[in-house]
Order: sequence, then C-alpha cells, then structure tokens
Amino acid sequence: MYELHFGVPMAGAVLCALNTRHDSAMVSVLLRHSEAKIIFVDHQLLDVAKGALEILSKASRKLPHLILISDRESPLSSQNNNNRSLASKDLKYESFLANGEPDFEIVWPNDEWDAIALNYTSGTTSRPKGVVYSHRGAYLNSLAAALLAEMPSMPVYLWTLPMFHCNGWCLTWTVAAQGGTNICLRNVTEKGIFDSITQHQVTHMAGAPTVLNMIINAPRSVQRPLSRTVNVMTGGAPPPPQVLLKMKELGFNVTHGYGLTETYGPATVCIWKPEWNSLSPDEQANIHARQGVNHLGLEDVDVKDSESMKSVPSDAKTMGEVMIRGNTVMNGYLKDRKATEDAFRGGWFRSGDLAVKHPDGYIELKDRSKDIIISGGENISTIEVESVIFSHPSVLEAAVVGRPDDHWGETPCAFVKLKNGCNASADEIIKHCRDCLPHYMAPRTVIFDDLPTTSTGKIQKFVLRQRVKAMGSVSKASKL
Amino acid sequence: MYELHFGVPMAGAVLCALNTRHDSAMVSVLLRHSEAKIIFVDHQLLDVAKGALEILSKASRKLPHLILISDRESPLSSQNNNNRSLASKDLKYESFLANGEPDFEIVWPNDEWDAIALNYTSGTTSRPKGVVYSHRGAYLNSLAAALLAEMPSMPVYLWTLPMFHCNGWCLTWTVAAQGGTNICLRNVTEKGIFDSITQHQVTHMAGAPTVLNMIINAPRSVQRPLSRTVNVMTGGAPPPPQVLLKMKELGFNVTHGYGLTETYGPATVCIWKPEWNSLSPDEQANIHARQGVNHLGLEDVDVKDSESMKSVPSDAKTMGEVMIRGNTVMNGYLKDRKATEDAFRGGWFRSGDLAVKHPDGYIELKDRSKDIIISGGENISTIEVESVIFSHPSVLEAAVVGRPDDHWGETPCAFVKLKNGCNASADEIIKHCRDCLPHYMAPRTVIFDDLPTTSTGKIQKFVLRQRVKAMGSVSKASKL
Repeated sequence: MYELHFGVPMAGAVLCALNTRHDSAMVSVLLRHSEAKIIFVDHQLLDVAKGALEILSKASRKLPHLILISDRESPLSSQNNNNRSLASKDLKYESFLANGEPDFEIVWPNDEWDAIALNYTSGTTSRPKGVVYSHRGAYLNSLAAALLAEMPSMPVYLWTLPMFHCNGWCLTWTVAAQGGTNICLRNVTEKGIFDSITQHQVTHMAGAPTVLNMIINAPRSVQRPLSRTVNVMTGGAPPPPQVLLKMKELGFNVTHGYGLTETYGPATVCIWKPEWNSLSPDEQANIHARQGVNHLGLEDVDVKDSESMKSVPSDAKTMGEVMIRGNTVMNGYLKDRKATEDAFRGGWFRSGDLAVKHPDGYIELKDRSKDIIISGGENISTIEVESVIFSHPSVLEAAVVGRPDDHWGETPCAFVKLKNGCNASADEIIKHCRDCLPHYMAPRTVIFDDLPTTSTGKIQKFVLRQRVKAMGSVSKASKL
Repeated sequence: MYELHFGVPMAGAVLCALNTRHDSAMVSVLLRHSEAKIIFVDHQLLDVAKGALEILSKASRKLPHLILISDRESPLSSQNNNNRSLASKDLKYESFLANGEPDFEIVWPNDEWDAIALNYTSGTTSRPKGVVYSHRGAYLNSLAAALLAEMPSMPVYLWTLPMFHCNGWCLTWTVAAQGGTNICLRNVTEKGIFDSITQHQVTHMAGAPTVLNMIINAPRSVQRPLSRTVNVMTGGAPPPPQVLLKMKELGFNVTHGYGLTETYGPATVCIWKPEWNSLSPDEQANIHARQGVNHLGLEDVDVKDSESMKSVPSDAKTMGEVMIRGNTVMNGYLKDRKATEDAFRGGWFRSGDLAVKHPDGYIELKDRSKDIIISGGENISTIEVESVIFSHPSVLEAAVVGRPDDHWGETPCAFVKLKNGCNASADEIIKHCRDCLPHYMAPRTVIFDDLPTTSTGKIQKFVLRQRVKAMGSVSKASKL
C-alpha cells in the first residue's frame, strides 16, 4: 500500500485505496464507480476481492486486473485451498514489479490540479462519495502535515492510522518527504503499538481518539515506559479531554487536528500556546480538545451562518457551520456534480460540522449538523454530553444521540460501554451528568452496550439513531 | 523592515528591499529602475536616501514619498541638524501607521504568480538585475525553509542574515508562519550574537560563512557557552570544512544550503545522513561542505553540460553547470527580457556555478563559471584551493583568482588575511598547498591583505581580478 502511493501516481494513474472493512458488495460498487483498471489485493482480503469481481462478472462488467500482494512464502498454494483461487491472468505483486521496465520514465501530471487519488468517504452515510484529490493539494497537505506534526527529518512513523483513510492524512507522502521510516502493523493492537514504539524508537504516530483510548486503557502487562516523547496526531472526532490528559501523563505529546476526507485529512490544528501551560490540567485538556486554526497549507477556515454566509462572532457561544477553502480542499466528488455544487454552495466547502469561534480565533466543534439534539428548542451538543459521561471513571466509550420525545421533541440518549470489571448504573451516569451539566442536557436514557464503529474508529451514530427510533418516544410526562 | 514584509504585500504592493551598503548613486538607480512609489528609510540611512532623491530630483524624475523609520526618541530634531532634513511631505513611520484605516481589507493577489518582492542581485556584477519573486514561490520557499532548517513551531530566530538579501532567504515569512520570535541586531557583531543567544534563548539563525567565521574567531571574552544547540543555516558561499568543524565543536548545528537570489535563497540542502556520523571529523566536514539535494519546495536541481543540456554522470568528477527548475525559481529579471531568456535558455535556470554530482546525487560546487581558473588546459577549482589555504592554522580568510600567465594562461593567485597575532610567509602558504594538492593547483602568488566583501559576506572576486590584472603576467619561465 505504501509503495503504491508512489508507483501509481508515477505511472500517471490515480490511486483509489479502499477501506479494508468493506465487503464484496461494497467493493464491487466502488470498483464500478471508480472504473478501476487494476486492483491490488492483500492476501488477507483476496476472498473479498474475488467476491467483488464475481459480482461484476455476473453483471457482465469489464473486470480489473488483479495483483496479489502477499507477505507469506507461498500465498498462492495456500490460497488455492480456498474456494476462490487466482485466475490465470492474475499476477503476484513481486512478479509484477520484477517485470517492470527499469528505464520507465515517470509520467508527470499535465496539470497540478490533475487527480492523484480518489478517496471514498467512510461509510457513515449510506452512499459513499468519491472525493478527488489533486497533486497540488496532496503536495501542500503533505508539507503542512510535516509542520503541524512537528516532524523533523528522518522520523520513525508508526501506522496506527489506516493508509486508506485520506491516504493516511497524506502522511504517506509526508514521511517520504522527510526521509522517514514507516512501521506498519497488520493489525493495530495495544501490544503491537507499545512493542513497536520500544523496538523501533517511534517518534510519530497518528490515529482517531479510539487509538488513544486503546493506549491509555492498555493492560499493564502490555504498556511500556516511553524512552522519549512520542508525537501523536489525533483527529477524526473531538478527543475527550480526559483522554488527552491521560495521554500526556503517559508521555505522549498529542497534537489535535480536525478535518474531513474532503480536506485531505487535517485542515486545522490546535496549536498550543505557551501561556496555557500555567492552567490546571483539566483546563489544559479542555482547551486541547478545541479544533484550532487552519494549518499552513490551507487558505482559511471559518464558522459561518449556513444561510447568510456571515461569520459568527468570536464569542465562544454562537454556533455556525465550519466552512473551509483553499488548496487542500478536494476538487469535487467524482461523477456527482450535484453533491459537489451543494458542498461548495457560497464559495466555501461546507463541512456539515457545527462549531463556535473563541475570541482568539480557535474554533471548537459542537456537533455534526445532523447529530445535534434539539430539545425543547435548545441545542444540545452531543460532544459536550459525551465528554461529561466520559469523565466518569467507569466509562470506556460513550455516544449520545437524540431520542424522540413527545414533549421535548428529542432528549439525549446515551450509549455507554463500561471498562472491564467496572460497574455503573444508568441512574449513576445520569446523576453524574446532572452534576456537571444543565439538567436538560443530561441523558434521559442510558443503554449499556458495545458501540458500532467504522474501521477508522468513528462511532456510527446513524446505527444508534436507528436503534433509538425503534425504541419509540420517551414518556410524555416530564418533570425536568 | 520585518513589518514591511507583511504590510507591503497586504497593501497589494511589491516590496523592494535595498542593500544597506548602497550609496546614493546606486539607490537612485534602483529607485528609478524599480519605479518605487514609497521609500521607507531607517534613520541611519536617511542621508543616503536624501542623496538619492536629490539625484532623481536633478534629473527631473518623480520622487517617491519618504517615510522615516526611527527607534530614537526625536529623530527629526536630531536629523534636522544635518544638511538634509525631512521635506514637509515626508512622514514618520509611526505616524504613518497611526493614520492607517483600521478596517482596511487585505488586497489579495489576483494571481499567485503576481510579484510579492523585487530583489536586486548583490553587487558582484556591475549592473544589478531586479529579480522578481512571486507570491507562490515565496510561500513555497518559506514552508520549505522551515523544513530544511528543522524549525518547529515558535522558534526564536536571530537575524544575522540581512533581511534585504533574498528577503532573508524567505525566513522573514517562515518565522511568522511558525509563530516565532525575531531578534534583530542593528549591527552584527560577535558580542551581539553571543549576547542575543544567551539572553533570548535563540534556537535558529542564518548567515554566510563569514558569519560563522565571526563566531568561531570571536574573542574568548565575548564567547558564551550555549545552553542548547543553535541551528544555523549557512549558504551564499561554500563553507570551508574547517569552519564547519569548529562550529560543531562550539555546539552549533550547521545546515548547509545553496542557492542564488534567483532561487529565493536556498535551493539545495546538504541533508545529513546518519551513516556519516561514523566518519572522521575531517571527512564529515568535507561532506558537510557539499551543496546537497534540492529542498522540498523545488522541483529539480541538476548538473548539466551547458551546451548539450545532458546531465553529467554522478561520478564526483565531471564538472557541469548547476541548473535549477521549479516554483521557487524567479519569474524573471524586471524589464530585462534578454537577461531572462539567457538565464532560462534550455528550460532550466542556469546558475553559472560549476559543480560535480556524487554517486548519491548530492551536488558539490567547484566554482563560479567565471571564477574557475584554467591553467595549462586544466580546470582549477578556486574553492578547493581556498579550502586548503583555509586549513592553515594562521589563516582567517582566503580567496583565489586566476592571474594571467604567459606560459600557463593563468595560475592561481591567493589573497590571504591572517588571524590577529599570526604570522605565515607566502612560501609557507604555497608549501602547505603543495603538500595537499597537485602542484599545478597551488598558488604561484600569495598576497596578504584584507578581502573586499559585499554586505552579505561574499568576497568580491571581480575586485581581486582587477588587482591581479594590474599586476601583469607571472614570469614566463616556469618549472612546475
């Protein structure tokens, strides 16, 4: 995968990295939509790929060539025991490379706005959209990422962020630009993370807050003391302040950024101001959870009223939509002019995220537009409620969605996963929230369960919303 | 000067920073050529500026507005004692700022290739050329400079490199981009450098090898131990290995880059490979003096045959001309189409510098095309000869030029400045060279004197060439 981030563009082609959790049906849809001509497949995913090709074959579609990547000694013989074997025209990656022309000349893009990559947005919406990245944008985001991650030359980078996710926030190219070493894990585990850090002297890594959560909750037997600070970029979801606090205690230096697939990964970074060092650890963690300011590769990030396009005041209170413009915003959605026009209505890319702007210009996310709960006419930031639930010592993960309520319209419903060996009742969680929040913001319902997540660690709130919808309305009589 | 690097472009104007050593005649030529509308003048240079305006006035030229910058309490009253006082329409900088419109909107460039700055090449040629920088190039060089200087966020940068020189290699903008602190010295002195480093916890600085020379030869009374490593970018002339060695011993981490005014300052950087750490200090210093590879903001640097445009082999022996292309190469020379076309003949910017390419792709400068000595048909790299002279313990500075020779065509003539309190005869210097170099490369003449330099620390070889020309040919009989 890492090599293909260079070989594919150098061949004049466009890279389309697919989510490793997709099933054959989804892969077949994306192969068709992207018009892929070659599919490179890791041996672990060969069945999924073969299944996708069968679906295309049945629909009489032209099939892409398959090239098998394997780090096993004899992948073909072992795979031949499976139902789906390689077809005669399929190639193994190493043979494919061996057959290359040594004097092949790099095919440079005709125009710097030409596509370098196509990234389908992670499946929190029903129909994935193909986000087109340009050479220009990828170059600028790669350089900006080196700066925002404080990545000097020759870093040792541990891949806990999937490379298929926004091309690893463009860090695939950043690490090469800085002459770094890539440490890749087949599966991201607590043990794999700590072992790699110790063994390879990892300097940098990145990942969604769920990766941070794995680290701070790793069993004692697996944790190792860090011999030097490890810089961790996080984003994808606002990290709960408690997680940031514990990461710091363990010796990790967390840089918090924010972005979307449409912005090549990170668009903002919460640049740490020295004067914040004198605040209490709790205050520091709260500020650290802000999304911050646009990075050096991006022209502008603002919080605006979705209709009037006016900037909201920098009062830390007025919510508006996060809007972004600049070179590191996608060219558009492939073959979807309508979605592209909607996304850029008013001349800015509309993130769909709701935020406030602090007096120093730092933005702070309050919610996804579609996640926000409106209860009795009041906006409730699910992120704020989740942060409070998260601060309860027994809680491992939490997600809050709106549950239909005949009286209030909606009230917060919390899905909570407790830590191993911990106990807490629904009443205890609700009381904890009421101690820290206005009563109307505290959940009325608490459900203890595992949380459904995407492969990039985002909690799939649409799944939770379907569940609460099925549960029906909260009782009409409310004494809140 | 630093503020003007932002205010001028934000007003939609082009910044043209002039060399502080220019006299009134030169300033009048440049004001006329650049068509400057406003001239901002430091109080120390008011006489020079007024003189230039008088010259323009006599030639019935339209005069630019003058705005006086002063860090003295009452500059006007003290200046009024001079012959040339401020005219009634002249303004003081602080009053000028106070009269600004608070809600002035930034004038963005219409096109990213629009000019942001005009830089006249330093006066080693008789007729200065106006190098046009674009917003695009300046932006990219600024980001690349942060990466090549290993400059993390919030650096403390000491200005020992003049801001008028390639806009301080674009570090003016880099330091702002990284949220840094600027430490400015009115005059660059050994004491000023060491005092600033101690007082302000300087993390980064830059300068020509002459600045490094100042540091390593600073009197004991002025030197201070460094409490942390100071990163120093050097370039403008190949730093002698002995200088690099001593800088390292003092605790400075020197990054060696190479570039020209036409490339926004640094174009290459000698990125240090970890495997070189096991070499002897001398070998390390020799490798460190190589110019290296293109930085991340630049497309390509190559060494080519000037006529055929073919790349020279990477054999560390074959000389060719350093050629450069990419976004951080100038738009062209202002009002000089012919010079621009000549400079870009063949599609690459021709540096006029001669170099070899090492097997790892690193380039190493051997000479300026016009500085190289051709003796008996053999090319003699003046840089190599200078390095050897420099390694003599009594030598402070050295420059070698070709002296006409009836028999050999040219032979090397060395101009040497000895360290305070040191003695060495011409014979001793020549013997030292013969011990380290082929005999034909050793100087035949050694002259002890101060060396003429430009204000950016470059030795003015054309002045030395005029002197040796006046000396006439070396004796016809040669036994070499």
